[in-house]
Amino acid sequence: MQLALVLYDRFTALDIVGPFQVLADIPGVEAVFVAETAGPVTDHTGRLTIEATAALAEVPAPDIVVVPGGPGERIAGPDHPVVAWLRAVHPTTTWTTSVCTGSILLALAGLLDGVEATCHWRSLDRLGALGAVPTGQRVVERGRIITAAGVSSGIDMGLVLASRLFGDEVAQAVQLAIEYDPQPPFDAGSPAKAPAGVRALLESVVT
Amino acid sequence: MQLALVLYDRFTALDIVGPFQVLADIPGVEAVFVAETAGPVTDHTGRLTIEATAALAEVPAPDIVVVPGGPGERIAGPDHPVVAWLRAVHPTTTWTTSVCTGSILLALAGLLDGVEATCHWRSLDRLGALGAVPTGQRVVERGRIITAAGVSSGIDMGLVLASRLFGDEVAQAVQLAIEYDPQPPFDAGSPAKAPAGVRALLESVVT
Repeated sequence: MQLALVLYDRFTALDIVGPFQVLADIPGVEAVFVAETAGPVTDHTGRLTIEATAALAEVPAPDIVVVPGGPGERIAGPDHPVVAWLRAVHPTTTWTTSVCTGSILLALAGLLDGVEATCHWRSLDRLGALGAVPTGQRVVERGRIITAAGVSSGIDMGLVLASRLFGDEVAQAVQLAIEYDPQPPFDAGSPAKAPAGVRALLESVVT
Repeated sequence: MQLALVLYDRFTALDIVGPFQVLADIPGVEAVFVAETAGPVTDHTGRLTIEATAALAEVPAPDIVVVPGGPGERIAGPDHPVVAWLRAVHPTTTWTTSVCTGSILLALAGLLDGVEATCHWRSLDRLGALGAVPTGQRVVERGRIITAAGVSSGIDMGLVLASRLFGDEVAQAVQLAIEYDPQPPFDAGSPAKAPAGVRALLESVVT
């Protein structure tokens, strides 16, 4: 079972490493990082570089696709190499998935027209403008498409995907293996829960 | 403020990308991936390669150190390059931290003698045999050392570290930025919570 993990310039690292870590150790999963061309791809911080081991053109029929978000998607249009590839491979995938603003790329590929989907809370409006029906849920499964909310939600999405592919016991075994028993020191991980001052602070530093 | 993120052959990716994603976007943090030599370093799955942009010797005085776990630590002894480097840099760090079995490397460096610490639940005995005092907690802060439990716990640890370095508001803003509002589909992320059959399944596939 081929798992294609998409990279592009200025992706957000945890978006893709979360689902990767959930799925890559499951027997039978062949994980491959893909990008427009094989080689190093640098994240949005400019500090982390992951190697794409295959070009998109070399992976024409993946079973599972995961598309991360990141500021790099903001320059994408309907002819972006990742978008064109998504349009080409989606008809034969088992699951096409995204984390964070990766769903913007799915929408640009025409995969979310009239479909309920999610992304990072700051980009839900953009997702809606592209024809999707944004929801505030953390993981949204519609047909063969699963979209997840911002950045860290890819771990939750990965576990949902693992349960669909391999059953609940395997998904739980992965959760135990990665000791995913979250205990954040604060409860500020969604706009509904974060204090107003915290949201204002974030808006002041993130463009 | 220099944040040194340690890599070594067969590290576990989420261990280091979790804290990286929490800390790297905070203004003033200069994140650098370091390894024995600069260049590509491959994770324990053999599928993910991250670029180390500096050799350990080029980073002699980091402010913050994060050491990931992974099967690669099993071959380490007191003279392992990462262990020797940890011994050399720890006296002048602000915080020395680990995720998962990264704490085994801290223990080998002599930093955890008689100190309460944690690691992945399957390796707590090994940690104790090296002189640390293992706890079952997810994040353990003792003096200038913070250790975290398995794999995904590095996100929680990163938020604790962010709050110590920059205050609770900044840590909460990061939590909101990465939308860390965990909603795993199961509650099987610790040995105390996972069904017995799930633990047996995991033990049957992981060595």
